Amino acid sequence: MSSAEFSLIDRYFAGIARSSSARSSYVDVSIGDDCAILSIPDDQQLALSIDTLNADVHFPASADAKLIAQRALAVSISDLAAMGATPVALTLAISLPSFDEQWLARFSEGLKQSVEHYAIALIGGDTTQGPLSLTIQVHGIVPRGKALRRNGAQFGDSVFVTGCVGDSAAALALMQDRLTVAGEQDYLQGRYYQPSARINVGERLKGLASSAIDISDGLVADLGHIVKASGVGAEVVIDSLPFSPEILSVCSIEQAREYGLTGGDDYELCFTATPLNREKIQALAIELSVPITEVGQIIKGSGVRCLDQQGNNVVLTKTGYQHFQ
Amino acid sequence: MSSAEFSLIDRYFAGIARSSSARSSYVDVSIGDDCAILSIPDDQQLALSIDTLNADVHFPASADAKLIAQRALAVSISDLAAMGATPVALTLAISLPSFDEQWLARFSEGLKQSVEHYAIALIGGDTTQGPLSLTIQVHGIVPRGKALRRNGAQFGDSVFVTGCVGDSAAALALMQDRLTVAGEQDYLQGRYYQPSARINVGERLKGLASSAIDISDGLVADLGHIVKASGVGAEVVIDSLPFSPEILSVCSIEQAREYGLTGGDDYELCFTATPLNREKIQALAIELSVPITEVGQIIKGSGVRCLDQQGNNVVLTKTGYQHFQ
Repeated sequence: MSSAEFSLIDRYFAGIARSSSARSSYVDVSIGDDCAILSIPDDQQLALSIDTLNADVHFPASADAKLIAQRALAVSISDLAAMGATPVALTLAISLPSFDEQWLARFSEGLKQSVEHYAIALIGGDTTQGPLSLTIQVHGIVPRGKALRRNGAQFGDSVFVTGCVGDSAAALALMQDRLTVAGEQDYLQGRYYQPSARINVGERLKGLASSAIDISDGLVADLGHIVKASGVGAEVVIDSLPFSPEILSVCSIEQAREYGLTGGDDYELCFTATPLNREKIQALAIELSVPITEVGQIIKGSGVRCLDQQGNNVVLTKTGYQHFQ
Repeated sequence: MSSAEFSLIDRYFAGIARSSSARSSYVDVSIGDDCAILSIPDDQQLALSIDTLNADVHFPASADAKLIAQRALAVSISDLAAMGATPVALTLAISLPSFDEQWLARFSEGLKQSVEHYAIALIGGDTTQGPLSLTIQVHGIVPRGKALRRNGAQFGDSVFVTGCVGDSAAALALMQDRLTVAGEQDYLQGRYYQPSARINVGERLKGLASSAIDISDGLVADLGHIVKASGVGAEVVIDSLPFSPEILSVCSIEQAREYGLTGGDDYELCFTATPLNREKIQALAIELSVPITEVGQIIKGSGVRCLDQQGNNVVLTKTGYQHFQ
């Protein structure tokens, strides 16, 4: 790409940066200098997370650029939700193979919408030539000492998940023709490309939850990160998993369970809390209109076991996470 | 790559994160949770910058992985130097085409050395499969309101550069066989792969310099960013440019001037200051053992003009920046 083309690209992002960073009291310097500058109040800490999405690994290269932008931002912001942090600012490093004004216009449109939706400011970035790839770093604030960590789960805690699980894995299966039943495909694809980073839930779980993580690799794998960091084990009762009507329009309940337990990309929150907080958590779910479901409990030991309603162990066919490929 | 291979890669970085972040009083949470967490004192601001280096665009894919790591970190930290910030923490997003333990060991060795050299903590990252690419975000602190900006240059200010210019462009020309004179190639390649991010100079220029930038695109282009942001113009006297003996061992003075004015990748600082600070700046150069050379002045108008010793305009053959390709 020529330097004139790079300048044109930068103009797209500079416009979003100007309008978004002007609204934030934490942003002292946005795009246009060697560094961006943030001010973090003394009673707050800065939470930050970096994520890369590569074309044809983490999303189809041919996907609508608007959806690519929205998915990338939601995936990153979900890490802030899992810490109970409030979004403040993001930086975007984008590699593009060529100059495609239509693609850029569409990408910027998606980015702008998501930036406004999450009330986050674009404050810096880097545009380079290379295979299509996005790296986003998000920055949030959290009251000092109140961040939701992975290492706080206690024996006897209940395990909860927000929303429904498995939708994104089902969407991926549909896109890859591993599922072929005509059903609520549009809804499921929307869940894959535009997941709801649960910022409003995370912010309110501080003081209620003992640990939290977002579901990027699948419930079993991510709950596995919590129990490993906390030095405990967990049981998940598979009959209690929350599924959308839409996932059940394209596959069986058994298949949905596999997607929910081992599929990634849901970007719901999985968290633990003492059963004493159950009522407060249900009241929160109602207040925020986000389903929160109790799906298991923290036990002594290690690892994550899945049980049916009779308490029998269920063996999973797959525990990993499959990149889009 | 398999999840076992990803785990192995993460172990390399987790080791560096543990040893480096434990030393920093600003790092509350490092690698291992959904987010890293920093504490920024109330009298400081956080400066941050993100940069991507793609294989065969920004460095040869076949280059020594140790040098790739060191160059990437120096390039990023140079942005902190240009703001007068002190390095605190970095995040690293790396895409790798395949699992290559030898490459990773070498890369980690380089990263560890640079992390120690700049006293910066590795606090987070993301490892993905994809074409070889590095995205680094660096975070530094700067006393509130004291950051060196691009927009402070004043009519009558002098223009200074640290170190010598053109070395990296000459190294690139040697690597690409555009220069074929046998000379001090090793020194020049060292300047390309292991540039000195001028943190110690930047930290001390606060209160002395009116504006600053690091030279990534070439002196004319980067001084151009300063004058544009400041609403002024600049004159550079080409006879005053500082060159290393090593660059003059591989090319003519005329060629060296072109490299210095229009070649990128030097990662020296270009800054402006009132001539009243000239003595303090020269004392600083002696104290830090870093050459600082006055190369021009800020004038009314716009843009950057190059003059010979007689004050005649010199026309540049090239004003852009050439990626490695």
